[in-house]
Amino acid sequence: MSVHPPHRLLMGPGPITADPRVLRAMSAQLVGQYDPWMTATMTETMGLYREVFRTANEQTLLVDGTSRAGIEAALVSLVEPGDRVLVPVFGRFGHLLVEIAERCGAEVHTIEVPWGQVFAPEAIEEAVVATRPKVLAVVQGDTSTTMCQPLADLGEICRRHDVLLYCDATASLGGNDFETDAWGLDVVTAGLQKCLGGPSGSAPITISERAVAVIDGRKHVEAGIAEPGETGAGVRIASNYLDLAQVMDYWGPRRLNHHTEATTMLYGARECARLLVEEGLDAAVARHALHGRAMLEGVRGLGLAVFGDVAHKMHNVVAVEIPAGLGSSGGDAARSALLEDFGIEIGTSFGPLHGKVWRIGTMGYNARKDAVLLTLAALEQVLRAAGVPLTAGGGVGAAREVYSS
Amino acid sequence: MSVHPPHRLLMGPGPITADPRVLRAMSAQLVGQYDPWMTATMTETMGLYREVFRTANEQTLLVDGTSRAGIEAALVSLVEPGDRVLVPVFGRFGHLLVEIAERCGAEVHTIEVPWGQVFAPEAIEEAVVATRPKVLAVVQGDTSTTMCQPLADLGEICRRHDVLLYCDATASLGGNDFETDAWGLDVVTAGLQKCLGGPSGSAPITISERAVAVIDGRKHVEAGIAEPGETGAGVRIASNYLDLAQVMDYWGPRRLNHHTEATTMLYGARECARLLVEEGLDAAVARHALHGRAMLEGVRGLGLAVFGDVAHKMHNVVAVEIPAGLGSSGGDAARSALLEDFGIEIGTSFGPLHGKVWRIGTMGYNARKDAVLLTLAALEQVLRAAGVPLTAGGGVGAAREVYSS
Repeated sequence: MSVHPPHRLLMGPGPITADPRVLRAMSAQLVGQYDPWMTATMTETMGLYREVFRTANEQTLLVDGTSRAGIEAALVSLVEPGDRVLVPVFGRFGHLLVEIAERCGAEVHTIEVPWGQVFAPEAIEEAVVATRPKVLAVVQGDTSTTMCQPLADLGEICRRHDVLLYCDATASLGGNDFETDAWGLDVVTAGLQKCLGGPSGSAPITISERAVAVIDGRKHVEAGIAEPGETGAGVRIASNYLDLAQVMDYWGPRRLNHHTEATTMLYGARECARLLVEEGLDAAVARHALHGRAMLEGVRGLGLAVFGDVAHKMHNVVAVEIPAGLGSSGGDAARSALLEDFGIEIGTSFGPLHGKVWRIGTMGYNARKDAVLLTLAALEQVLRAAGVPLTAGGGVGAAREVYSS
Repeated sequence: MSVHPPHRLLMGPGPITADPRVLRAMSAQLVGQYDPWMTATMTETMGLYREVFRTANEQTLLVDGTSRAGIEAALVSLVEPGDRVLVPVFGRFGHLLVEIAERCGAEVHTIEVPWGQVFAPEAIEEAVVATRPKVLAVVQGDTSTTMCQPLADLGEICRRHDVLLYCDATASLGGNDFETDAWGLDVVTAGLQKCLGGPSGSAPITISERAVAVIDGRKHVEAGIAEPGETGAGVRIASNYLDLAQVMDYWGPRRLNHHTEATTMLYGARECARLLVEEGLDAAVARHALHGRAMLEGVRGLGLAVFGDVAHKMHNVVAVEIPAGLGSSGGDAARSALLEDFGIEIGTSFGPLHGKVWRIGTMGYNARKDAVLLTLAALEQVLRAAGVPLTAGGGVGAAREVYSS
C-alpha cells in the first residue's frame, strides 16, 4: 500500500508538520543534473538562502543530507587533525559539536553552563584566550534546553583573536533574529525541519570568504575529475561526500561533478526559503515570537511551570515542567494520550531534563494561532483526565489574551 | 514563483524522470520521528529493501544522503586508517571508490582494465592474493562505460581469502540481476535515481552479519547519548553522520537518537521499493533487458556504433559512438538540440570517452516503449538536421522489431 501517514499536528521541538506548499513543490518532476534550468535553479536557491542567512557570502548552498550532515561538512572541511576547537556547551547539541569535532581529529576544549542558561560573551572570550582555538563552534538555539545563545558579540571577539566562528542555527533560523554578516559568523549551517517549515534532508550552509580560503587551502579535486596537472594543497579533507571545497565547485561556475544533487530536496529547500523571503524575515521572526509567547503564557495559564532562563528562550520552543502529580512515568503517558487521542505530538527531553520537562514547539508552518489553541485545549483535557489540578480554560484563555493584546 | 521545471524526458545515465507514484508518495505529510507509525514505516521499509537486495540481512536500511553518501558510509565504517582496500577499476566509479577509501586512510590497491571491458574473476582473485586486502570494493554497473561487472564468483573468492566484499550497485540495482546473499556480498549500497525510479537523496544499504560484526567492533556511541558506563571499542569511525554503527542503532530496536530521519526521502525510498516488489524483481530486470535491447538495436538501426563489450553491458544504459560527421563539438550540439527542441536529455561522458560517446539510458520509469521510440525518433531528426547520413525510420524500425519479436 502506498504511504498513508496518520494525521498529526507536530508541536514538538521538530521535525514539525511541513508547510503544504513545500510538499507541493517537492512533487514537481525532475530535470537533469546539468540542465540549464537545473543549474539556474541551484543558483537562484543560493540567492534565496543569502537572504535567509542575511549574508552576501557567494558560497551559500545546500549540503545533501540532514542538518547533522551540514554540521559535519562544516567541521570536517575546516578542521585538520590536531587543530584546536572550542565549544561552549549549553545543551545536547553542544555535545554533538564536540563529538563531531573529535571525530575530525580536533583537540576539543569545552566550557559549560548548566542546562537552561546561556553564556555571557566575556566567558566565551576568556575561553578563547585560554585555549586559542582555530574554530569556535557554537549552537545558536539548542532545543534540548530551549535556550538561544546571544551571538552578536562573538564575531568581533573571534576576529580579534583570529578564530573562525562556526554556528549551528538548525533549530533557530527563521524564527529568531539571525545575522550572518552583521554578527561576523564565518560558517553557518541549518536544516529545513524547524522554523523553515520543510522536511529534514537538506542542510543550507553559508561560508564567509575567510572560511572559503581555509577550506580551499585544503582542496584536492578527486581523481578522475581533476584537470591534468591540478594538484591538491594542504591536508586532504577526510570526507569526500562532505568536502565543501568540492561541493562549492559543484554549485559554482565550474559545475564540477560531485554528488548527484538531491533534486526533490532542492525543490523543498528552495520553497522553504522562497516562502520565508516572501513573508519577510522580520515578519517570520515576529510570528514566531507571537505564537511562542502565546504558548508560553498558555502553559503558564494551565498552572504549569516553565524551565530555564525564559529571557533567553528561543521563540519557537518552550520547556514545560511535567507536573509532579503525574508521577514518574506520567509525562510519557500524557504525551501518548495527546498523540493517540488528539493526534498532537509534543516532545520528550534528553539528558538531565529527561522525565522532567516536555518540549512544545511553535515553529515553521505550526507557528499559528489554531495550532497553539488546539494544543492547549487538548493538553488541558489530558491533564484533567490524569487528575492534575488546573484552571478550566486557563491555557486557551491566557493565549487568547496574548493574541488580543 | 513556486518551482516550475520544464517538461523533460530524461534518457541519460541517471538521474531519470521519477515515477509519478514516487513523487506522489513524497508529498505525504510528515509524522514525528518516534511516532509508532513512523518507526513501523522504517521497519517496513527495511523489509522491502531486503526483497530488493535479495538478502536476509537484518541490517538493511537507508543512509540519508545521495548514493555517494552510501558509498562513504560503507567504506568509512569498515575501513580503519592503514587497512588495505583493493579496487578493480573499470570506469569512473571505480576511481571514486579509490578516492573515498583513500580519504578513509586506506592503503588502496587497484587493478584496471580498459574502459569498455570487465574483469574475469580469476584476475580479481589474483589481485586479492597479491594484496591481501581487508575489503574488496567493486562497482557492479559503471555508467561511465556502461559495463556490468560479473559478481557471482566474487563472494566465494572473498570468503576463501577472508576479505570483506563491498559493492556499489547504484546504477544497476533493479535493472540487472542482483543477488546479495547468493553472491556472498557483505555490504551493498545503492541510490534511487537509476533503475529504482526515484529522485537522488536516499541511499539504500544492506550489511551482512560478518560486516556488522566488523562495524560494531568500532562502535562508539556519541557523548550525551551513550548509556552510563557504555564505552566504545576499537578505532572510532571517523564520521559521525555516516557512522553505520550508530545508524543501525537508530533503525534498530534501540532507536538510538542520531540524525533526524529525512522523512520525505524515506517515503520516496519506500515507494520505489514497493513498486519494484509489486512488479517483481525478475519482471523489472526483464523490462530493463527488453527496453535496453530495443534502444541498442534502435541506435544501431540509425547506423550508429555502440561502444564497449556489449555482452557485458548493463541493460539500462548504452554508450553510442558520436558520428564522426558531427565534428568535434557536434556531440554536444546534438545533445543540446535534443534537449531544446524535443525536451529529451541524453548523457555526455567522462574521461577517456569524453567527446566520443553519448550515453543513453532506459531505466526505472523510463524503461518504457514510448520513451525508447520517442528518443529514437527525435535523435533521427537531430542527426538528419546535422547532416549525418542515416536510414530514415531505421532506429524506430529496429526497436519495433525487438518489441514484436
